Amino acid sequence: MSERLIYLPLGGAGEIGMNAYVYGHGQPGRERLILVDLGVTFGDMDSAPGIDLIMPDLRWLEDNRDRLEAIFITHGHEDHVGALGLLWNRLRVPVYARRFTGALARMKMEEAGVPTDQLRIVAPRPEVVEAGPFRVQFVPVSHSIPESAALLIDTPAGRIVHTGDFKLDGTPVVGEAFDAVAWHDIAQEASIKVLACDSTNVFSPHPGRSEALLANPLLDFVLAQKQMIVATTFASNVARLKTLADAGVAAGRRVCLLGRAMRKMVTAAVETGILRDFPAVIGPEEAANLPRDKVMLIVTGSQGERRAASMQLSMGKYLGIELKEGDSFLFSSRTIPGNERPVGRIMNNLSRLGVDVFDPDDGMYHVSGHANRPDLEALHDLLKPRVLIPMHGEHMHLREHAMIGRAKGMAAGIVTNGMMMDLTGDVPRQVDEVPTGRVYLDGTVLIGAMDGVVRDRIRMALNGHATVSVIIDENDEPLPDAWVETMGLAAQGRAGVPLARHVESELADYLERVDSQTVLDDRKLDEGLRRIVRQATMEEIGKRPEVRIIISRLAAD
Amino acid sequence: MSERLIYLPLGGAGEIGMNAYVYGHGQPGRERLILVDLGVTFGDMDSAPGIDLIMPDLRWLEDNRDRLEAIFITHGHEDHVGALGLLWNRLRVPVYARRFTGALARMKMEEAGVPTDQLRIVAPRPEVVEAGPFRVQFVPVSHSIPESAALLIDTPAGRIVHTGDFKLDGTPVVGEAFDAVAWHDIAQEASIKVLACDSTNVFSPHPGRSEALLANPLLDFVLAQKQMIVATTFASNVARLKTLADAGVAAGRRVCLLGRAMRKMVTAAVETGILRDFPAVIGPEEAANLPRDKVMLIVTGSQGERRAASMQLSMGKYLGIELKEGDSFLFSSRTIPGNERPVGRIMNNLSRLGVDVFDPDDGMYHVSGHANRPDLEALHDLLKPRVLIPMHGEHMHLREHAMIGRAKGMAAGIVTNGMMMDLTGDVPRQVDEVPTGRVYLDGTVLIGAMDGVVRDRIRMALNGHATVSVIIDENDEPLPDAWVETMGLAAQGRAGVPLARHVESELADYLERVDSQTVLDDRKLDEGLRRIVRQATMEEIGKRPEVRIIISRLAAD
Repeated sequence: MSERLIYLPLGGAGEIGMNAYVYGHGQPGRERLILVDLGVTFGDMDSAPGIDLIMPDLRWLEDNRDRLEAIFITHGHEDHVGALGLLWNRLRVPVYARRFTGALARMKMEEAGVPTDQLRIVAPRPEVVEAGPFRVQFVPVSHSIPESAALLIDTPAGRIVHTGDFKLDGTPVVGEAFDAVAWHDIAQEASIKVLACDSTNVFSPHPGRSEALLANPLLDFVLAQKQMIVATTFASNVARLKTLADAGVAAGRRVCLLGRAMRKMVTAAVETGILRDFPAVIGPEEAANLPRDKVMLIVTGSQGERRAASMQLSMGKYLGIELKEGDSFLFSSRTIPGNERPVGRIMNNLSRLGVDVFDPDDGMYHVSGHANRPDLEALHDLLKPRVLIPMHGEHMHLREHAMIGRAKGMAAGIVTNGMMMDLTGDVPRQVDEVPTGRVYLDGTVLIGAMDGVVRDRIRMALNGHATVSVIIDENDEPLPDAWVETMGLAAQGRAGVPLARHVESELADYLERVDSQTVLDDRKLDEGLRRIVRQATMEEIGKRPEVRIIISRLAAD
Repeated sequence: MSERLIYLPLGGAGEIGMNAYVYGHGQPGRERLILVDLGVTFGDMDSAPGIDLIMPDLRWLEDNRDRLEAIFITHGHEDHVGALGLLWNRLRVPVYARRFTGALARMKMEEAGVPTDQLRIVAPRPEVVEAGPFRVQFVPVSHSIPESAALLIDTPAGRIVHTGDFKLDGTPVVGEAFDAVAWHDIAQEASIKVLACDSTNVFSPHPGRSEALLANPLLDFVLAQKQMIVATTFASNVARLKTLADAGVAAGRRVCLLGRAMRKMVTAAVETGILRDFPAVIGPEEAANLPRDKVMLIVTGSQGERRAASMQLSMGKYLGIELKEGDSFLFSSRTIPGNERPVGRIMNNLSRLGVDVFDPDDGMYHVSGHANRPDLEALHDLLKPRVLIPMHGEHMHLREHAMIGRAKGMAAGIVTNGMMMDLTGDVPRQVDEVPTGRVYLDGTVLIGAMDGVVRDRIRMALNGHATVSVIIDENDEPLPDAWVETMGLAAQGRAGVPLARHVESELADYLERVDSQTVLDDRKLDEGLRRIVRQATMEEIGKRPEVRIIISRLAAD
């Protein structure tokens, strides 16, 4: 049988977050595989209450682990590397990354307690990693974290460019610029068969702006403020941290970094040589004791995370620092859709303190790390791929990107998680659908999204919970006093007595009249009791709670 | 003692939603009172899971019911009238509203089963309602629902303008235009002492746009579409419904309204004479059978509400209608912050169906119903009040609005729910803080936000739930088999056995060694058992669940 080239996204295609893309080459069903990126996404109360992290279900890849050659990490963002530590044990193959990305990958693996001896640091192109039939090069691209790389993947079926996340930034402040000439050369060297391309910003109509454009507005901003300045941004945006810190120092302020993630990121960037000339920082104690107009805090929590520095500072004293009337708080960030409420909470908290809030949603103090629509088109034109595979985006982003590609004459497919595509020919063709989904980190265990755990939590949150304990005596007679405990239910309903007492009395009536056949049958008795509880609660308070019944049968001596 | 004029917001001041403002005049502590508006707000999974509606806690007003003269409703939006039915019984005073608003108020009262004989329909100024020391006139203003009114409240201490929600729209399509000349006359007639003013759009820097400006873009849009068109907007925006329907008819399409709220609103608007010349509509069966390019659906659910028509249509067949590739879906609305995720879900569902989505966030097909910053300033200039009370806004909106007012020489206070202000003098002065808060409709009962019900639901959603049943025999000895039922917890942890069985065995160990003093003491035993459950679960799966313990003591015969 002839060999083929396959593409199979397991995460990130049909969603923004938890990227995980498989490429394979070989005889059908026996392709040798590589995995690009292994990221997480974050849950919310609506869909995943209590869940710490969400990551792709790698079941198919685990089942085919013997065919997997290696994992490649394009850059150090959580949605590209965040699941590496938690899931590496299920794959146990070498991991390739550039130096800074590798440092972050190593932290993930160490935190998860997995060995790091298979982590390999790679230099950018022209260094080549051979992985089965694939020859892979890391090509620097600009993004909102240093050392992002696109992958140039040469296969027996042709050359693939997998962009990872990128933007076209010629002056990214920290890290490498997007080098159009180098990319032109790459396309000249061998024609690009497939471009698998970031789609997150496909709906943004204007060309992206450079990180360097922020230096002057930020300096002007800092110079204009009269008291303490707090600026928040994404911890991993090392270039922004530097621009902010430089502005602070240029305005005669000392800079203090608050937030573990931010200090970790700066340390990693300094240690790997990415970040030079970062101004000396001070600790929170020193910041608290300096005149307010001599301090600039750069802090985590731009998305309203509950425990991060931004929220904590907005609620009062934090690490000895207290914001006051006349202070200034800058969001040098964009609110990710879904985080509007917690971010609004910070803004209102600050308003109560009399702190002036400067908001980025006008774009003065933030630029995106992703290629906008005209930038995507520029890349299409530069690389001239035969096939365009839009990746990293919700369905609407992939569809829009595919329509753009088709309008320009490329074969473009909307490929979502689980769709195995044959890329050998001129047009991508679906050849299989593999099981995919999500795995949750819940406390210290990994559970499947479909295990019912989260579904039950959502039900309890919406409906409340009632527990019933019933005892059946040695003679198989129910004791008359059923016991009811409720949680998350109104204490009292129409009857004007405590809800639990009312339900108990309904249950006592039921237990008095129930036939002995039902009493002997755990399942029937459970059903009967459950029905009574739900009916009584519905009548009393208009809710049907989740019910757990415990039937204890006393053993005859 | 001399008389005074007081202002006391019980809802809407420090939040957007659930408006309820009290004015009073008389001797301190004996002021005669009126209430302006009685609205609801909506909960979400983060803060109020399972809660149907949120409304202001009127405790203070209920305690002072004998001093309350009347309730005035400015307009028919849920956040101004939505709680009238549910809370009227606690106040039992006459309710004044204009005709269309009154029709909606009547529905609320009928749904709640309270008598409507104290609902009084009022004509706009010059008609005057006398309510104790207050003389109140309804002055038409433009907003995104017909017949909105500001209240002109004459008191012995001077004239108050309470704007309700408004915008400066000279051509609102349905309902009255904002009449600057009439407002000028009002300010000439007697100087305005206090302006209590809508603040929701204070951060919008550009002058608001008229509803009438949408007619041409919407007609162009409809003419450009080739297959079925679905447009969604707020059900109460009767002017928009008319503009959309007119565009559909002008383009040779039949119009079908989907969604109970929308049909109800149009019916009320037609019956009260507000809405004339609304095109004849067809039912969903007929719409399903017409050629796709001859149909325009106008539907509810612009905010991603789960059961509304937009979400249902995006998920497949709904009322016999199925969207297809090439159809067009228009959001003639704005996504209210916090609803981005469900709205995104609709957009991605539609993308999967191949339906093209047209998004309002560029503002082509939607205008706001609220006054933007320049419009607010225009109203300040027109009315020249001595005191500005920013209302209806989160803290940051009130603060910004107050700063604008102060910069123009007005006395302006940031007054949030529960602050009782004396408005008698030239500067508002806080004289009391009254208990306030939120009441939840949960199923069929009203519960206090601080009752712990919702807190418990959130805890169960985050932590899961475990129930333990333990039996103490006639000799005060615990039976060794404790029974554990879990919900919302991983089925299995580190020990590799089912979690509930593992916890049961830990509990059995505990029950074997527990001293007889503890066994005799329900509370001590409960504590001991709870500790074991939480410890064991933490070790096994890294979570500390909510625990309910049921101890059953068998009576000695």
